[in-house]
Amino acid sequence: MLQTVDLLSIVADDIKQVEAKMRSDLADHHANLQSVVDHLIEAGGKRLRPALTLMAANFYPVDKDKSYALAASVELLHTASLVHDDLIDNALFRRGIPTLNVNWSPGATILTGDFLFARSAQLAAETDNVRVVNIFAQTLMVIVGGELNQFFNNGHNNIPAQEEYRDRIYAKTASLFAAGTEAGGVLCNAPEKEIQALRDYGYYLGMAFQVIDDVLDFNGDEKHLGKPVANDLRQGIATLPVMLFNEQQPNHPTLLKAVRRQALSDAEIVDIVAQIRASGCIEVSMKEARRYVTRAQESLEQLPDNTYSQIMYNIADYVVTRKV
Amino acid sequence: MLQTVDLLSIVADDIKQVEAKMRSDLADHHANLQSVVDHLIEAGGKRLRPALTLMAANFYPVDKDKSYALAASVELLHTASLVHDDLIDNALFRRGIPTLNVNWSPGATILTGDFLFARSAQLAAETDNVRVVNIFAQTLMVIVGGELNQFFNNGHNNIPAQEEYRDRIYAKTASLFAAGTEAGGVLCNAPEKEIQALRDYGYYLGMAFQVIDDVLDFNGDEKHLGKPVANDLRQGIATLPVMLFNEQQPNHPTLLKAVRRQALSDAEIVDIVAQIRASGCIEVSMKEARRYVTRAQESLEQLPDNTYSQIMYNIADYVVTRKV
Repeated sequence: MLQTVDLLSIVADDIKQVEAKMRSDLADHHANLQSVVDHLIEAGGKRLRPALTLMAANFYPVDKDKSYALAASVELLHTASLVHDDLIDNALFRRGIPTLNVNWSPGATILTGDFLFARSAQLAAETDNVRVVNIFAQTLMVIVGGELNQFFNNGHNNIPAQEEYRDRIYAKTASLFAAGTEAGGVLCNAPEKEIQALRDYGYYLGMAFQVIDDVLDFNGDEKHLGKPVANDLRQGIATLPVMLFNEQQPNHPTLLKAVRRQALSDAEIVDIVAQIRASGCIEVSMKEARRYVTRAQESLEQLPDNTYSQIMYNIADYVVTRKV
Repeated sequence: MLQTVDLLSIVADDIKQVEAKMRSDLADHHANLQSVVDHLIEAGGKRLRPALTLMAANFYPVDKDKSYALAASVELLHTASLVHDDLIDNALFRRGIPTLNVNWSPGATILTGDFLFARSAQLAAETDNVRVVNIFAQTLMVIVGGELNQFFNNGHNNIPAQEEYRDRIYAKTASLFAAGTEAGGVLCNAPEKEIQALRDYGYYLGMAFQVIDDVLDFNGDEKHLGKPVANDLRQGIATLPVMLFNEQQPNHPTLLKAVRRQALSDAEIVDIVAQIRASGCIEVSMKEARRYVTRAQESLEQLPDNTYSQIMYNIADYVVTRKV
């Protein structure tokens, strides 16, 4: 099976420039911030969002430096939202590495997130493209709006409906994937029809990506993911496998307990995870992810057949087969 | 003496449109947020920043709706930064009204601030003017950068130099005044020389405004300001009167204690405030504020002599005579 590193090799050199942009100007006058930002950037994972942004921006001739600024803006927006999320959730690890809030005060963590948001906005503005900036601002609203919804809906006492789940994963994940590929198309002056296709690709890929993330929360082992199994459920968050299981067995007492934010014992977690795994709901969730992947790949038919669209096709396949 | 309400009456109707923009789209899907945002907007004070932004935007014919979006963006950026600031400082009151963090969880408060930042960015983008968006993003960086500096410099053990004070009040206050008036000039396509003059006016006015704010912290009575006297000093923050006093009496034990973040007793506060008031340093600080006001007024000489520039001249006078 292809690894991400192979799939993304076409933009590997560009990603180095993007990382340089992510670091630049961040810590000039903030020595305390420098090491923290370096740490956040180094812990940054696969760079799938900026890589897809760069690919979308390369369908037509583009100002390279602006494409780096755009990709860096997308990745820093993602990083900033994680910094605040982890603080709010009191998460201790992210990708197996201690979160900022573990070692820093809440004040320092809030301000670091704000600073990354600010730098992200500045990089979006560096594209000198008002449509790109509008996509950026709109996406920031969607992401923060989704976080607010999740925060305030934590109080409700039932397993939510699948429609709410789709809104949530759009806000959490697909919106930024879609913003990156759409803005990439805008930046290289792709025809309108192709900009829409790039947005659709990013949207469906992001939806698939998040469904898989939620499936891996039930399938994965702790070593690979750097977080405990059924982490969402422990926090009272019902994802697709839980919703599907709830349709089979409405109001299972353990699940109700979880979404009512009552702590589950380890024995209860082990038991409910085993029941969900045995129910076939993981497989149904995987099918949903594959449907999204198919749609992402269909969107590519509107685009020129070139190296980028071929790699984007393969990335879509990769997203549903990944184990981490 | 003229009141702010008289000085700002020329834009009073426009300010209503700005407030409508500040509220719009904020809470459509966030019922919990609606009342909080209304509360923040109603507690919003004199609207000096958006009023000056509107005046600057009216020197030449301007798209009214875009000028409202810009002014709303400026005021929401200010509001967002206060929401996070108050949380970080654990402030209990702002303008005599309980802060958001008193009644809300840190998570809800962080997300509300993020949402206001996002909406502010969206409103800046609504101007469809990439130079305006660049000013916005740059200013956001300066403001958050200043907060980071102040946060991390809290550890240092000496009274800082006046240069550091100037950097701090630029980041905290003057940067946004300058951004508003500059962006107003950009939006109405003022000549470059006049855009620079509008920026200078906002900068010097903002500097004067913050020096006066810091003076009022020693002069004001608690009823008018809605916060205790010597509030900054209680938090270990040395402002201009303290720095000037420190030049007269280096390393006064009470001041060193304060900046080393050791709690001062009420008796120590009363004593040091009396000493600073008797030292003449308040008057010297006022002189500094008046120097800034003069420079703000001189900047107006580069601009057409019209109702707006005359009112802006009077606002500069008002800023150094205000009691609240």
